[in-house]
Amino acid sequence: MALSKRITGLTGGGSDGWDVYYRAKDMQAQGVDIAMLTIGEHDVGTDISILDAMYGAAKAGHVGYSMFTGNTNLRERVAGRVAARTGVQTKPENVLIVPGGQAGLFAAHHAACDEGYTALFIDPYYATYPGTIRGVGARPLAVQARAEQDFQPDPADIAAVADGAKSLLINSPNNPTGAVYSLETMEGIAGVCQDHDLWLISDEVYDTQLWEGEHISARTLPGMAERTLVIGSLSKSHAMTGSRIGWIIGPEEAIFHIGNLATHTTYGVAGFVQEAAYFALDQGEAFEAQIAEPFRRRRDLVLAQVAGQNVVRAVPAQGAMYVMLDIRATGLSGEDFALQLLDQHHVAVMPGESFGEAAAGHVRVALTVADERLEEAITHLIDMAQGLAQAA
Amino acid sequence: MALSKRITGLTGGGSDGWDVYYRAKDMQAQGVDIAMLTIGEHDVGTDISILDAMYGAAKAGHVGYSMFTGNTNLRERVAGRVAARTGVQTKPENVLIVPGGQAGLFAAHHAACDEGYTALFIDPYYATYPGTIRGVGARPLAVQARAEQDFQPDPADIAAVADGAKSLLINSPNNPTGAVYSLETMEGIAGVCQDHDLWLISDEVYDTQLWEGEHISARTLPGMAERTLVIGSLSKSHAMTGSRIGWIIGPEEAIFHIGNLATHTTYGVAGFVQEAAYFALDQGEAFEAQIAEPFRRRRDLVLAQVAGQNVVRAVPAQGAMYVMLDIRATGLSGEDFALQLLDQHHVAVMPGESFGEAAAGHVRVALTVADERLEEAITHLIDMAQGLAQAA
Repeated sequence: MALSKRITGLTGGGSDGWDVYYRAKDMQAQGVDIAMLTIGEHDVGTDISILDAMYGAAKAGHVGYSMFTGNTNLRERVAGRVAARTGVQTKPENVLIVPGGQAGLFAAHHAACDEGYTALFIDPYYATYPGTIRGVGARPLAVQARAEQDFQPDPADIAAVADGAKSLLINSPNNPTGAVYSLETMEGIAGVCQDHDLWLISDEVYDTQLWEGEHISARTLPGMAERTLVIGSLSKSHAMTGSRIGWIIGPEEAIFHIGNLATHTTYGVAGFVQEAAYFALDQGEAFEAQIAEPFRRRRDLVLAQVAGQNVVRAVPAQGAMYVMLDIRATGLSGEDFALQLLDQHHVAVMPGESFGEAAAGHVRVALTVADERLEEAITHLIDMAQGLAQAA
Repeated sequence: MALSKRITGLTGGGSDGWDVYYRAKDMQAQGVDIAMLTIGEHDVGTDISILDAMYGAAKAGHVGYSMFTGNTNLRERVAGRVAARTGVQTKPENVLIVPGGQAGLFAAHHAACDEGYTALFIDPYYATYPGTIRGVGARPLAVQARAEQDFQPDPADIAAVADGAKSLLINSPNNPTGAVYSLETMEGIAGVCQDHDLWLISDEVYDTQLWEGEHISARTLPGMAERTLVIGSLSKSHAMTGSRIGWIIGPEEAIFHIGNLATHTTYGVAGFVQEAAYFALDQGEAFEAQIAEPFRRRRDLVLAQVAGQNVVRAVPAQGAMYVMLDIRATGLSGEDFALQLLDQHHVAVMPGESFGEAAAGHVRVALTVADERLEEAITHLIDMAQGLAQAA
């Protein structure tokens, strides 16, 4: 039976650069002890207090259908949080609760793009971005951010392909690069969106992991709140990756329609998970800082190690739980370098090629193992890179 | 900012017949004691043993990203269940775990239909069906099942509009009518699907609530497993409506691609919910029978009450947690009858018009309140209908 062209073409075909990851998982399954610096999963799981809140809510009766748009108390809480962090007026009607950031990305593109529309996104990119765009029947078009500009996208590059496009997807703090978009970058992006009448879909799920500079939420820029859909999540900020809960912030009319879509795609989010999220958001900034702290500490460790030599260069890691390392001096591709590092030293990192074309010759290090293990892994990585560079 | 036509047109506009429901909810909020016989929510929530299993799994570490396609143990368990219940060979690769039946309906239509394709469904229908089809960019086309045929769809009616269509959505045991499709109906439907090369999307979430006849899963019919996507869920069978977990059963290739879609729409289902589902399925048939029992008992009560007169006629309620009552002898529409019943007797039922055109002049009674309350409500309903019929 023929399946839809949209679903069979979702990933666009070809290698997706995830071979290293699956090879590492296979080796782990065979009992090999691998330092897994691959995906953005906290090494310390969801706090027991949040799990207790979830269980308590379930026992108290939050086990039936919940509001499809999100429970009122949680929408109010998220609205208050966003208003407090950004200074932009945000009502519960600007908030839709969704089962995780990925569901938010899909729904936002569904709202922005009809079949055949062009949706822009920035390369390097998180693995699901182009497939999410294809999933709503739109055409993904990548705009490369340059390694030489520390992966800050250039608004002129976006403007050059924006005619006829309908939306632009950005992500700051950025996965995989760790870049935090500057005010200049954000203002330039806002200008392009207004000049070309684009929706801006702003994935801000790393907004509590900020090591340098300032996180500028897209809605704070003049004239942007009306054309911006912000994706938020508790996955990274509260180590709740597995709970699948997040939100979309946007204009009331858009949120109304996306809420209507939610009734037809997910039928709401489990009430006990919503109550757990409410509890988690109630724990305040110190709680969030405590969850972010290991990544800040490990980022500093890696940067200090890399500073001691000049073969491996670190892209300035201003935020998020990753450090992107430029290994082009070795003469290898990111993928070949990562495969060799895995086979020779049992250290798994993600090739830059897993995230598009712009990060070729780089590897992404997730800061998701204990400090000593991480330092040891980076020592192997640097040693191997130096050996390769000398031989080259 | 312009939103996609697909999302703004999702519900097709016009009254959706849910005014009675919202009016009843408003009256409740104002403190009026309403007998709510409206939606399919169990009056006894998820069993504490399932909530304990969920909490235990969360504490044991099922709080990170899970497999996007569903955890292996749960896929195996569901495959085993389906094989045992249907006799059709079913492997874990035929099973995709999704966050609830509605997510399954959306994903199945996404897999079957590209933009502009026609997707058939049966009227009367569950409220989200046409919007789900519009949500994937397809065109919903209703085929009416007739009250005079106890809402068994006529395959000839489907065949008459099947040219150029891509899929057919059915639901047996049926919400809202309580009909269970006969072998003759199912064989006729299978023939139409094969003659017209249609995907059959079979919503079987009520398959444990069977009071008369036999539930025939669509995959059991010759030649149908390769063109059928079955939607299952724990919502009704295990009183887990709020946990949002279900599955799609289908050919391996389709499940592979829908799993790929899941990575881009929901990013999997919470691991602790999957473990709770695994536990729930492990409780066996007696557990499920116990959850279904109140609806069987109340269905018998309502039928006995209705049997004592001849103004209100009950559609044979063979399955599911509803009884559909024909009130055309009153001369009122289902909506006017339901509004009058709500205002005069504080009994809330759903007008047949909430479910399309074929059930006009009917009301749907959800068997979701305690027996005495239900009997009292039905007494009011019958008395009111008799009064109206005499005056007419």
